[in-house]
Amino acid sequence: MVMYPGPETKKACDNFGEERLPRDLIRAYGEVKFAVLSAIQEEEAFFSVLHWECISLAIEELISGLLDDYLCIPLMQGGAGTSINMCINETIAMRANSLLEERGEKGLLDSVEHINRYQSTNDTFTTAITIAVFRKLIELEKLVIDIQKLLADRERSYAGILMAGRTEMQDALPITLGQVFGSWAGMFERDRWRLNKIKERLRTIALGGTAVGTGFPVPASIVFASEARLREITGLPLARSQNLPDEIANLDKYTELAHGIRQVCDNIFKLTGDLLIYTSSQTGELVHPELQSGSSIMAAKTNPVLLEYARGLSIAASYSALSVSEYSRNGQLQLNAFLPFVCEELFRAFELAKKALAALIRLIPKLEVNKKRIEENLLRSHILLNALLPVIGYRRVKELYHSHPEPFLSTHELADYAAKKTGLDKKKILEAIDIDNITSFGGRKNA
Amino acid sequence: MVMYPGPETKKACDNFGEERLPRDLIRAYGEVKFAVLSAIQEEEAFFSVLHWECISLAIEELISGLLDDYLCIPLMQGGAGTSINMCINETIAMRANSLLEERGEKGLLDSVEHINRYQSTNDTFTTAITIAVFRKLIELEKLVIDIQKLLADRERSYAGILMAGRTEMQDALPITLGQVFGSWAGMFERDRWRLNKIKERLRTIALGGTAVGTGFPVPASIVFASEARLREITGLPLARSQNLPDEIANLDKYTELAHGIRQVCDNIFKLTGDLLIYTSSQTGELVHPELQSGSSIMAAKTNPVLLEYARGLSIAASYSALSVSEYSRNGQLQLNAFLPFVCEELFRAFELAKKALAALIRLIPKLEVNKKRIEENLLRSHILLNALLPVIGYRRVKELYHSHPEPFLSTHELADYAAKKTGLDKKKILEAIDIDNITSFGGRKNA
Amino acid sequence: MVMYPGPETKKACDNFGEERLPRDLIRAYGEVKFAVLSAIQEEEAFFSVLHWECISLAIEELISGLLDDYLCIPLMQGGAGTSINMCINETIAMRANSLLEERGEKGLLDSVEHINRYQSTNDTFTTAITIAVFRKLIELEKLVIDIQKLLADRERSYAGILMAGRTEMQDALPITLGQVFGSWAGMFERDRWRLNKIKERLRTIALGGTAVGTGFPVPASIVFASEARLREITGLPLARSQNLPDEIANLDKYTELAHGIRQVCDNIFKLTGDLLIYTSSQTGELVHPELQSGSSIMAAKTNPVLLEYARGLSIAASYSALSVSEYSRNGQLQLNAFLPFVCEELFRAFELAKKALAALIRLIPKLEVNKKRIEENLLRSHILLNALLPVIGYRRVKELYHSHPEPFLSTHELADYAAKKTGLDKKKILEAIDIDNITSFGGRKNA
Amino acid sequence: MVMYPGPETKKACDNFGEERLPRDLIRAYGEVKFAVLSAIQEEEAFFSVLHWECISLAIEELISGLLDDYLCIPLMQGGAGTSINMCINETIAMRANSLLEERGEKGLLDSVEHINRYQSTNDTFTTAITIAVFRKLIELEKLVIDIQKLLADRERSYAGILMAGRTEMQDALPITLGQVFGSWAGMFERDRWRLNKIKERLRTIALGGTAVGTGFPVPASIVFASEARLREITGLPLARSQNLPDEIANLDKYTELAHGIRQVCDNIFKLTGDLLIYTSSQTGELVHPELQSGSSIMAAKTNPVLLEYARGLSIAASYSALSVSEYSRNGQLQLNAFLPFVCEELFRAFELAKKALAALIRLIPKLEVNKKRIEENLLRSHILLNALLPVIGYRRVKELYHSHPEPFLSTHELADYAAKKTGLDKKKILEAIDIDNITSFGGRKNA
Repeated sequence: MVMYPGPETKKACDNFGEERLPRDLIRAYGEVKFAVLSAIQEEEAFFSVLHWECISLAIEELISGLLDDYLCIPLMQGGAGTSINMCINETIAMRANSLLEERGEKGLLDSVEHINRYQSTNDTFTTAITIAVFRKLIELEKLVIDIQKLLADRERSYAGILMAGRTEMQDALPITLGQVFGSWAGMFERDRWRLNKIKERLRTIALGGTAVGTGFPVPASIVFASEARLREITGLPLARSQNLPDEIANLDKYTELAHGIRQVCDNIFKLTGDLLIYTSSQTGELVHPELQSGSSIMAAKTNPVLLEYARGLSIAASYSALSVSEYSRNGQLQLNAFLPFVCEELFRAFELAKKALAALIRLIPKLEVNKKRIEENLLRSHILLNALLPVIGYRRVKELYHSHPEPFLSTHELADYAAKKTGLDKKKILEAIDIDNITSFGGRKNA
Repeated sequence: MVMYPGPETKKACDNFGEERLPRDLIRAYGEVKFAVLSAIQEEEAFFSVLHWECISLAIEELISGLLDDYLCIPLMQGGAGTSINMCINETIAMRANSLLEERGEKGLLDSVEHINRYQSTNDTFTTAITIAVFRKLIELEKLVIDIQKLLADRERSYAGILMAGRTEMQDALPITLGQVFGSWAGMFERDRWRLNKIKERLRTIALGGTAVGTGFPVPASIVFASEARLREITGLPLARSQNLPDEIANLDKYTELAHGIRQVCDNIFKLTGDLLIYTSSQTGELVHPELQSGSSIMAAKTNPVLLEYARGLSIAASYSALSVSEYSRNGQLQLNAFLPFVCEELFRAFELAKKALAALIRLIPKLEVNKKRIEENLLRSHILLNALLPVIGYRRVKELYHSHPEPFLSTHELADYAAKKTGLDKKKILEAIDIDNITSFGGRKNA
Repeated sequence: MVMYPGPETKKACDNFGEERLPRDLIRAYGEVKFAVLSAIQEEEAFFSVLHWECISLAIEELISGLLDDYLCIPLMQGGAGTSINMCINETIAMRANSLLEERGEKGLLDSVEHINRYQSTNDTFTTAITIAVFRKLIELEKLVIDIQKLLADRERSYAGILMAGRTEMQDALPITLGQVFGSWAGMFERDRWRLNKIKERLRTIALGGTAVGTGFPVPASIVFASEARLREITGLPLARSQNLPDEIANLDKYTELAHGIRQVCDNIFKLTGDLLIYTSSQTGELVHPELQSGSSIMAAKTNPVLLEYARGLSIAASYSALSVSEYSRNGQLQLNAFLPFVCEELFRAFELAKKALAALIRLIPKLEVNKKRIEENLLRSHILLNALLPVIGYRRVKELYHSHPEPFLSTHELADYAAKKTGLDKKKILEAIDIDNITSFGGRKNA
Repeated sequence: MVMYPGPETKKACDNFGEERLPRDLIRAYGEVKFAVLSAIQEEEAFFSVLHWECISLAIEELISGLLDDYLCIPLMQGGAGTSINMCINETIAMRANSLLEERGEKGLLDSVEHINRYQSTNDTFTTAITIAVFRKLIELEKLVIDIQKLLADRERSYAGILMAGRTEMQDALPITLGQVFGSWAGMFERDRWRLNKIKERLRTIALGGTAVGTGFPVPASIVFASEARLREITGLPLARSQNLPDEIANLDKYTELAHGIRQVCDNIFKLTGDLLIYTSSQTGELVHPELQSGSSIMAAKTNPVLLEYARGLSIAASYSALSVSEYSRNGQLQLNAFLPFVCEELFRAFELAKKALAALIRLIPKLEVNKKRIEENLLRSHILLNALLPVIGYRRVKELYHSHPEPFLSTHELADYAAKKTGLDKKKILEAIDIDNITSFGGRKNA
C-alpha cells in the first residue's frame, strides 16, 4: 500500500511507477536538506523555534529510515531527479506538519516554499549522490584492501611451493605458488591506489549552484554555511566546486568512479579466470571447497560455484558501470537529465562488485593446495630442465626434453637422468633447480 | 522470513544470499518439470496414481505462484543454475509430500531421485529460460507493433504539415511532419521483422540432453514425449535441438535475442533524441505534455520527462543486453556456467525496454504539434527558396537567400519577394513550393 | 605526392588530412554514379555522345582502380560524406575533361552540375556503402560456411573418440570428440542463417531520395531507371526503400549487420577459448602446430599462436562493430552525419573477422589429436563409472569413485575393478561404458 | 617488396601477413634493446669492441627509422609479441653483421644468443610498449592542456554575454556565455589531473623479469644496470616493478590508461554535442566556419564538419580504448597473450583522440558568437523574469510569463512591462536582471 506524501509524488508514480528509493540515497538527501535548512536557520532564523524543531525531527526520521514508506518512487525516472527532490520535500513537510499538529499547532509548512528554500534539484540531487557514492566507494575500498591482504598473506605462506609457471597456457618456467598469489595481490594493490585517487575529484559538490550553477537566488552566506554543515554532518571531505556550472552540467566524475569499479571487476575477472584453471579437473592444483551438490547425474563432482558467482557478478557490475559513461557523455547543455540513471547504475555496480569481492574473501581461505598434483604437473612438464640453460645452453636442454618423453616421477629421477645425459654433477643440477635459485635469480626476490 | 524447502536451497542461500526467483522463471521451470514427469508417467507409469496426483498438484501450485515463498534464492548465482533446479525440485517434493500426508500417506518423494528423474540442470534450466524469454519476446514485439502503428498513424495525419527538414542540424529542404513520423515508424517496422526472425533460433530446446548433450541416461521415448508435452503445455513452437551438445554448450541464441533488444533500444534512443530537439525551447515544433512540476525556481517550465525516462531506460536495457554477449562468449567447453546471469540480464533488459516503449506509447498521443512555430521556423530558414532550384539554378537561389537576411513572415511574402527578384510568375513560385510538389517530387510519395 | 582532382578535395584534405579512400568504397561509389548518369542519359539524353563516352570511360577507370591516387581523403571525416561525394565527382569530371581534351574538345564538364546531377551525398553515399558492405557480407558468409564445414567434417571423423566431457571445468560425463567439434559447428551453422537473414534489410537503397528522402528535385523516371541500372551493374538484389526519409535518417540496418559480425566474433571467441584449453599443457588433448619459435628461454615450447591471433582479432572486430551501434543511434533528425565512420568501422570489423576466420580455417586441419592424452584424462577422471548409474544408482557410483583414488590405467582395469566391487558381470560393464551407448543414449545420436 | 631480416620474421609473415610495425614501437623497442645490451657490455664486456660498435650502430639505425623496411610484420599477431621481439632481434643482428662485414669481419652475431641475451619477449615487449604509450600520453596531455586553456580564455572573454541557460533542453535561468565555456573547460581540467595521475602506475617496467617474472636467468647486476640505462636513454621516469610476475601477467595499467583516453573522448562527445546544438539552425548562437561546400542541392548551408569529425573520432577512439579492458581481463595465468592487440588499440585510440582534440583546437578560435541571436533567444524565453522571484515570488512570476505570450523585443520592453504589471520600479527590475546580479548571486562568481 503506497502512501503519497504529496501531489508531486503521486504524479511521479503515475509517470514512472511505484518502487522504493534506495535507503542510502534517502539518507544522503536528508543530510543535504538538513545542512541547507540548518544554514538558513542559522543565518536567517527563518523558522520559528517550534517549526524548526519539527522540521529537524522530521529530517532526522527521514535520515534514519522511519519515513521510507513515503519514498515510493523509482530511482529510474525522467526529469533529472526533480520528482525525487519533490518527494523528499513533501515527505519532510508532511511529517513536520504532523509533528506540529501533535504539538497543537497548525501544520502550514510548504514543501517548496519552506523545505526547498534556496535549493534546486540540480544542485541538491547531485550533492546527495556524491555523498552516497563516496560512502560506497569507501566500502568497496575496504573489500579491496581485504582481498589484497588475503592474497598477499598467501604470497608469503606459499613461497616454498614450486610449480609450473605457464605462459600462453603452456608450461614455461618454474615459479612459486607464492609468486602466483603475489601477482594477483599486485592487481588489487593498484586498485587501492586508483580508488583512493578518485576521491580527489569525487568530493566536489554543487550545493549552492541551484539550477544552472549561477547560484541564483541564494545569498552567499547561506551557501558557505550549508557547505560547512554538510561536511560536519556527513564526516566526508566534501568541498564546494570552484566551477558550479561545470559541476552541474558535467558528470564525468561519476564516469571516473565507474571506471574505478570496472578496474576492480576486470581484476576479479582475471583472478577468477586463473582460479577456474587452477581448480579445473585438468590442472587440479588448487581445490575449490564443496559448497553444494555438484550434480544429480555426475557423482563426486565439485563445482567452482563461488568462482563462477564472483566472475558472473563482476561482468554484470562492469556493464552497469560502463553505462554510466554513456549517460554522462549524453548530457545536454547546462544539465545532465540522466542523473537518476547514473545513480541507479552506480549503486548496482557497487552492490554487485562488493558481493563478488565478499564471495572471494570467503573463498580464498577455503581454497586448498593440492601439492601432489602441483609436483606431478611440474615433473610432467620437464621445465625444471630449463634451469640448466645457463650451464649447457638452449640446444642441449631441448635435446634433454625430447629424449625423455615420459613424465619424471620425482625431482631426483630428473636430476639423475640429467646428470647421466650431460655428465654434470647431480649436486650441481639439484642446486640449479633449487626453488630459491630458479625463482629469484641473482638473489632477487620479486624485485 | 525465508522458508527452505530443503537442504540444497539452504546451502544456496548460504552461498548467494536470499532473494525471490523471478515469477516468470518459476512458472517456466514448473512447466518443464511437468512435461518431463508427465512423460515419465505416461511411458513408465513410474509413480503410483496417488503420488502422481500429488506431484501434479504440487507442480500446478508452483506454476501458478502459490509456492513462490520457497523459491528464495537469487537468480544471480554460481553453479550454472544447479541450485535453482535443486530448489525447484525440493519445493515440488516438499509440497507433494505434504499433500501425500494430507491424504494420509507417508511423504517419501525424493527431490532428486523422483522429481529430477531423467533430468539435469544443464538441459532443463536452459529450456525453462527459453520458454520464459520467448514469452517476453512476444510481449516486446507487441509493444513494438503498437509504437510502430502509432507513429504510422501520425505519418498519415501529419501528411499536410510542411516543415524544415534538417541535416547535420542545419535547415536543409522542406519535408512533411508526416514524413518525419514515418521515418521513425520505419525503424520499428524493421524491428518487428528482426524480433520475429529471432524466434527461428530461439525456439530450440535442450530437453533430453542432460548434462553434456549426450542424453545419458534418458530413454529416447521419454525425450520425445517430454518435448511433445512441453509444446502442448506452453503453447510455444518449441523444437528439440538437432545438436544437443551444442544447445547446451553455446548460448549465442541468447546473444542474438539480446541484440534484438538492443536494436529496439537504439531506435528508442534515436527517436527520443529527435523528440528532445523537436520539443526543446529552441525548436519548439512539438510540445511535451506537462506531467509534473518542472522546477521550484524556474516558473513555467515543462520538462520532457517521459522522453528522458524512455531514453534513460533504453540505455540501461542496452547495457544489460550487451553483457549477455560477454557471458555467452565466455562459456567453457561443454557448458556455459553463466546461464543464471544471462537470464537475469535478459529479464532486466526486457523489463526496461518494455517500460521505455510503454512510456512512449503513452506519450506520443499527447504530443502536441505547434503549427505556428513550425511555420515560423520554416520561413525563417528560407529553404522554401530551394524549390526554385530546377527553375533558376543553384547560384540564383543562393543570391535570393542572401539578399533577404530577415525571416519571411508568410509564404506569400516569400513568393512575392521571389517573384519580384526573379521576374517569375508568383503562381509558378507558389506551385513550386507547394507541399505536394516539394516533398514528393515526380509524383512519388515516399517511394 | 597527393593529387587534388578539384578544390573541394583540397578543402577536405585541409580539414581531415590525407589518406586513400578504401578501394571497395570507390568501386561501389563509381557504380552508383554510373547507374544514375546512365539513367539520366537514357531518359534525358542529357550529354552529347562524346561527353557521355568520356564520362563513361572515366567512371570505368574509377571503378577499376586506375584513379585511386586522386581519392586522397580519409574515410573518417565530418560532413556526412559530402567530401567523399565531391571528391568522386571531381575525379570523374577531371578525368572526363581530360579525355575530352585528348579528343580535341574543351573539357567543360562540371563536377556538381553534371556529375552530381539529380543526386545528393545523402542518398548516393549510403547506397554506395550498402553495395560495399553487402559484398563483404557475402565474403564473410563464405568463410563462415567454410569453417562450419571443416568442423562438421571433424564431427564425423572423430565420432569414435571417447573423451571426458567437462562442465564448469570439471570432468562430468563422457562425450565424443566428434560431438565437441559438432557443438562448435553448431554455432557457425546458426551464424550462416543469421548472416543470410540480414540481407533482407541490408539490401534497401536510398537512391533517388536526395537530401532528406523527399526526392526533390529528381524526376521519378530517373529514379526508377537508376535503381534498375544499379541492380544490373552490381548484380546485387538491391531494392529502393519504400520509405526514403527513413532510409536516409536511420542507420539501424548497419547496426544489424554489425551485430551479425559480432555474433561470428563471439563464436570465434568461444571456439578459441575452448581450443586454448584443449591445446594447453594441462589438458593436451589437441596439439597446435609449431608455427614459430616459442621462446628463446623455454626450450621445446609450442605456442598456440593462431588461436591467440584469431581470438585477438575477434575482439578487435567486435569492438569496431559495437561502435556502429553508437554511431547509428546518435543520428539527428533527417540525417546521420556519422555515416563515414560507420563505413570505416564496418570495413575494419569485416577485415579483422575475415582474417580471424581465415586463420582458423588454416589451423583446424593442422590440429592433431593426442589420443593417448585423451584416454589418460578420461581414465583419470573416473567418469566412465557414471555409466553404471542406471544399474547401481547414484550412491554406489559415488562410493566406487572414492574407493579408488588413483587413475585407472585402462578401460579394462576399470571394468575389472567395478566388476569386483559391484558383483556385476564385466561384460555388462563394458557394454555400459561402450562409446555408442554412453554418448548417444537410447539409440539417439545428437538428436 | 618485403625484406625478411631472418627466418622468424618470415614465419611471422606467413602466420600473420605483412605490414609495417608502428614507428613509435620500433623506436621504443630499440631503446630497450640498447639499454639491456649496454648493461651487458658494461657489466660483462660480453662483446668485442668492434662487435659492440656495430651492434650499437645497428640499434641506433633501428631507433632512428633507417631499418623500418625490415620490420614488416603486423602488430596484430598471436604469440604475445614473440615474433616482434624476434623480428627486432633479427634486424639488429642482420644489420650489425652487415656492418661487421663492411669492416672486414665475419658477421656471426646471432639474433637470439647475442641480441636477445638475458631477455624474454615477455619482459622486453611490455617495457617497450610502456615507453611508447607513456610518450603518447604526454602528447595527449599537451592537447588537453591546450583545449582547456582555449576554453578558459573564452570563459573570460565571454563573461559579459548574457544568454539563456537551458536544462533538459528547456530555457531555465540566465547564464553567461563565459560560464558555458567555463563549464566545458572544467571537464578538461579534470582530464589533466587524471592523465597525470595515470603515470604513477604506467611508469613501472618488467625489464629483467624475463618469461614469468622470476628473472631467470639474468644476473641482478644486469637488471639494475638495464633499468638505469633505459631511464637515461628515454628520459622517462621509469621504475622497475617491485612485483615482476604481476607486471608481466597483468595489464590493468593499460586499461587504466585506456580509461583515461575514454574520459577525454567522453568530454569531447559532450562538448561537441553541446556545440552541435549551439551552432544549429534552430539555436544559432554560435556559428561554425564554412570549411567546405555544404551541399549541391541546398544553397547557403554550412555544415558543422569539424564538430562531426571530432565527435566521430572520439567515438572510434573510445571503442578501441574499451577493447583494451577486454584484452586485459582475458590474460591467462602468467602472461597476457594479447599484448600486441593492447598496443594496437591503444595506439589507435591515442591517434584518433589526438586528431579529435587537434580539430577542436583549430575550430574553437573560429567559432563566431551570434550576439543578436543570443539576445533574441533570451528575450523570447522570458526567463529574465525569473530574476524577480526573490521580490514577487514564484506565483506572480508565473503569471507574468503567461500574460505575455509574445517574445519581448528588448530588455527595456520587458522591464517596462514588468514594472507596469507589478508596480515595481523599473530601475529595480533592471537591477535584478543585471548580468552580474543574476549570474553570480550574492557576489560570488563561479564559486
